[in-house]
Amino acid sequence: MAILAKENWKKNIHVLSQKLKRFPGLLWQTIWKVGRDDPRRVVHALKVGLSLTLVSLLYLLEPLFEGIGQNAIWAVMTVVVVLEFTAGATLCKGLNRGLGTLVAGSLAFLIENIAEKTGHVFRAVFIGTAVFVIGTAATYMRFFPYVKRNYDYGVLIFLLTFNLITVSSYRVSNVMKIANERLYTIVIGCGVCLLMTLFIFPIWSGEDLHNSTVAKLEGLAKSIRACVDEYFSDVEKEMTREKSSEDPIDKGYKAVLDSKSQDETLALHASWEPRHSRHCRYPWEQYVKLGAVLRHFGYTVVALHGCLQTEIQTPRSYRALFKDPCSRVADEVSKALIELANSIKNRRRCSPGMLSDYLHEALQDLDDALKSQPRLFLGSNNNQTTSMLALAAARDNAIQKHAKNNSGVSLSSSFKTDTSALIKWKSRGMNNEGSKSSEASEGKALRGPQSSRIAITSLEFSEALPFAAFASLLVETVARLDNVMEEVEELGRIACFKEFKYSGDEGVVNC
Amino acid sequence: MAILAKENWKKNIHVLSQKLKRFPGLLWQTIWKVGRDDPRRVVHALKVGLSLTLVSLLYLLEPLFEGIGQNAIWAVMTVVVVLEFTAGATLCKGLNRGLGTLVAGSLAFLIENIAEKTGHVFRAVFIGTAVFVIGTAATYMRFFPYVKRNYDYGVLIFLLTFNLITVSSYRVSNVMKIANERLYTIVIGCGVCLLMTLFIFPIWSGEDLHNSTVAKLEGLAKSIRACVDEYFSDVEKEMTREKSSEDPIDKGYKAVLDSKSQDETLALHASWEPRHSRHCRYPWEQYVKLGAVLRHFGYTVVALHGCLQTEIQTPRSYRALFKDPCSRVADEVSKALIELANSIKNRRRCSPGMLSDYLHEALQDLDDALKSQPRLFLGSNNNQTTSMLALAAARDNAIQKHAKNNSGVSLSSSFKTDTSALIKWKSRGMNNEGSKSSEASEGKALRGPQSSRIAITSLEFSEALPFAAFASLLVETVARLDNVMEEVEELGRIACFKEFKYSGDEGVVNC
Repeated sequence: MAILAKENWKKNIHVLSQKLKRFPGLLWQTIWKVGRDDPRRVVHALKVGLSLTLVSLLYLLEPLFEGIGQNAIWAVMTVVVVLEFTAGATLCKGLNRGLGTLVAGSLAFLIENIAEKTGHVFRAVFIGTAVFVIGTAATYMRFFPYVKRNYDYGVLIFLLTFNLITVSSYRVSNVMKIANERLYTIVIGCGVCLLMTLFIFPIWSGEDLHNSTVAKLEGLAKSIRACVDEYFSDVEKEMTREKSSEDPIDKGYKAVLDSKSQDETLALHASWEPRHSRHCRYPWEQYVKLGAVLRHFGYTVVALHGCLQTEIQTPRSYRALFKDPCSRVADEVSKALIELANSIKNRRRCSPGMLSDYLHEALQDLDDALKSQPRLFLGSNNNQTTSMLALAAARDNAIQKHAKNNSGVSLSSSFKTDTSALIKWKSRGMNNEGSKSSEASEGKALRGPQSSRIAITSLEFSEALPFAAFASLLVETVARLDNVMEEVEELGRIACFKEFKYSGDEGVVNC
Repeated sequence: MAILAKENWKKNIHVLSQKLKRFPGLLWQTIWKVGRDDPRRVVHALKVGLSLTLVSLLYLLEPLFEGIGQNAIWAVMTVVVVLEFTAGATLCKGLNRGLGTLVAGSLAFLIENIAEKTGHVFRAVFIGTAVFVIGTAATYMRFFPYVKRNYDYGVLIFLLTFNLITVSSYRVSNVMKIANERLYTIVIGCGVCLLMTLFIFPIWSGEDLHNSTVAKLEGLAKSIRACVDEYFSDVEKEMTREKSSEDPIDKGYKAVLDSKSQDETLALHASWEPRHSRHCRYPWEQYVKLGAVLRHFGYTVVALHGCLQTEIQTPRSYRALFKDPCSRVADEVSKALIELANSIKNRRRCSPGMLSDYLHEALQDLDDALKSQPRLFLGSNNNQTTSMLALAAARDNAIQKHAKNNSGVSLSSSFKTDTSALIKWKSRGMNNEGSKSSEASEGKALRGPQSSRIAITSLEFSEALPFAAFASLLVETVARLDNVMEEVEELGRIACFKEFKYSGDEGVVNC
């Protein structure tokens, strides 16, 4: 038993030494990675070091110390606590701190005045009661949603300062003088923080929010394209996908899904930052709104991705029939997202009309392809199949009860897609026989459908079901894209982005 | 112009006074609501007030003050900063504070010893350099993901204390003695916090995490049921749904979707809390995992909800055909979720086998219904339709290539569902004519399908598409439910939940 324990102990020591050996390498890797991911972190660290050294000079330099004295230490404390990564966060904390200190000071002064007039024992009871009541009330206030969001830190500082002053005042007579002196040094500390955060390599929360929005749009675009590509690829990827955690589809939408709290924090801090333009305030609320819409869009992409992973799958040969129209819709959607991302990145408006036209054309093609497809599986007789298809397309175009926007969609364009899909299917399944006759029959549309009905059974509805879900979700992304476009347009309006010009990349400033 | 400005000013004053009048009412409402939503908040506020009063006594009571002196104020500061809502958060902050202070004190002592041996000017330069280097390094360290997650507050306190001691030591000779005394009072403050947080109405993060997991499961169950009910309801709700923001479907899954950061914070704090059981550690990691799986489940529910809101809809008459099997699947899924929620709530294991059986039976029925449906739309000849249906069901049951688990699914049960759907459809669409003959034909299954094929065209594939998506997503929820069950089972294993017993609600403790 003792030998076993000793063995165990030896093994543990060995494992520990192994870990210790690897530690410097790991540490260096982490240090390098953290800096490479965002070089502004290095800048921020240096800024904090510099600020601390600056306020330490108040203490270290003889003439400065003589003026300010022992309380200089509060400037150091202020810098440590207030100086944050972004300008907005620093301003938010600094102003909260200032506000909390001022309110606490005033209230403490009031209580002090009342307590002064009473006896020694009663005074202690009075102070104790005040501490209890104010402490309870302030803590309860921190649960109010509005206070929690905006002034949580301020209430904490209020409580801290209030207790400090009130309790001290019982033993120290010149407490208000001390508080006054401390206030000066806190103001000095805050001044150094503001200087550092606003004027020396400033890091803006608004900028971060802006960039993260662009990145989210681009990620979603990549995800959708990768999703559709994988769905229609000929190779089975089941095994490899499960192993690699760094799926490009996952990567694209992951950042969007869990972005809520980060977005809201950035927006909150951005709301404290000074305006960059004279006319327009920074539209942080609109970024949050856009983020919510993008998250909603992301949920559809997740569902689309889910279609790739379900066990029940539509046969690839059947899916291949819809490859062209589906890919086109996905391409148009991701193109639109990229275009929106670029428009935000360059702070210019985009023309949603132009985006929508192509998109709805692609959608119309997909719709037509879907409507004509159940009749495609049957034909030994090519002419009849094609004519049936043409008839269906013609009728559907005439009714058009599902399509939102059919302006600019000619009958011939939908014919072309359908026929090309048909050709592709044939060249795959039937070794190219009959593809010539199908092409030739393109002009002979609108013949009678009388004999094609007899063979319509080889398509099992339940087999088509997973594909139907995929197609339906793809159409859903287009509907959600409309919302995204609306919000981006609204963002451009509120933030006074430049007008879009067709002639080139440069735009005219609108407002 | 001046008159206009005055008018405007008057209007503003009026609006302001209106707001001021409503303010007390609003304030009271908020106070009431915050307390009613979670009465523990009131308890926490009272605890903070009580703790503050207790540490203030160090200052207010003569004998205590004589022992501790001026530094008692640090106990007050510690209580304000460290005492948090949950025990885990308080422990996390308290230990971070203690650790940070200790490390900072040691390092400052070291630097002090080195600096002591040098001249006055060189000493100032040395201290300034140390402040810069340590400040930069510590701030940079706060960006390391591991440090940020666990020790962010500790590093802040380290920086604060280190600067306080190092800078003070330049002017004050007995700084280490002061630091020592402060440490005592900080320990007293921490002691009061620990006492309050662990022994007087303790609020556990782990408990919160546990309850929020249960609530999430229940919310999802409600959402799914409401979703399917609304999809198959006869009344159009388009208008009312858009207006009311408090949709029961929304409400169910909203809490799940954005739960990531909250879950992780709770889990982090829970990881600091003491174990409640001797054998099993608190499985906070597993709760986070389960949360991720639930979020994934939630995305499918969002997509399902999206099916209700798209413009293109499958006709209600067609949807009604699948009402029974779809409702059954949804019922089974939500029953399973509720069962899982109850098992977690009562800390007992559930038997996933029992849940799965019913679920897969329902799924099989839906599958059968879907497979048989395209042929349903045709019949003027009732007998032939039914027999066709029976034939399809029989063939599908024989092949069963899609169904995951078909044990226990009898042929007759799927017949029954299909036929009842048929009857319902007929009684709705055809004014009850022929419903008797359909019921009578139930026994005459497996007749020849020879003549039914001729009429198969009245179902448009694109019209069925939205429903197909809905059904497919419903099936997807079942697949995801499997993952949820797995994680709940794993949770039960790690957390040593009681064994499930069929005989009643009470279980036997397993480990």
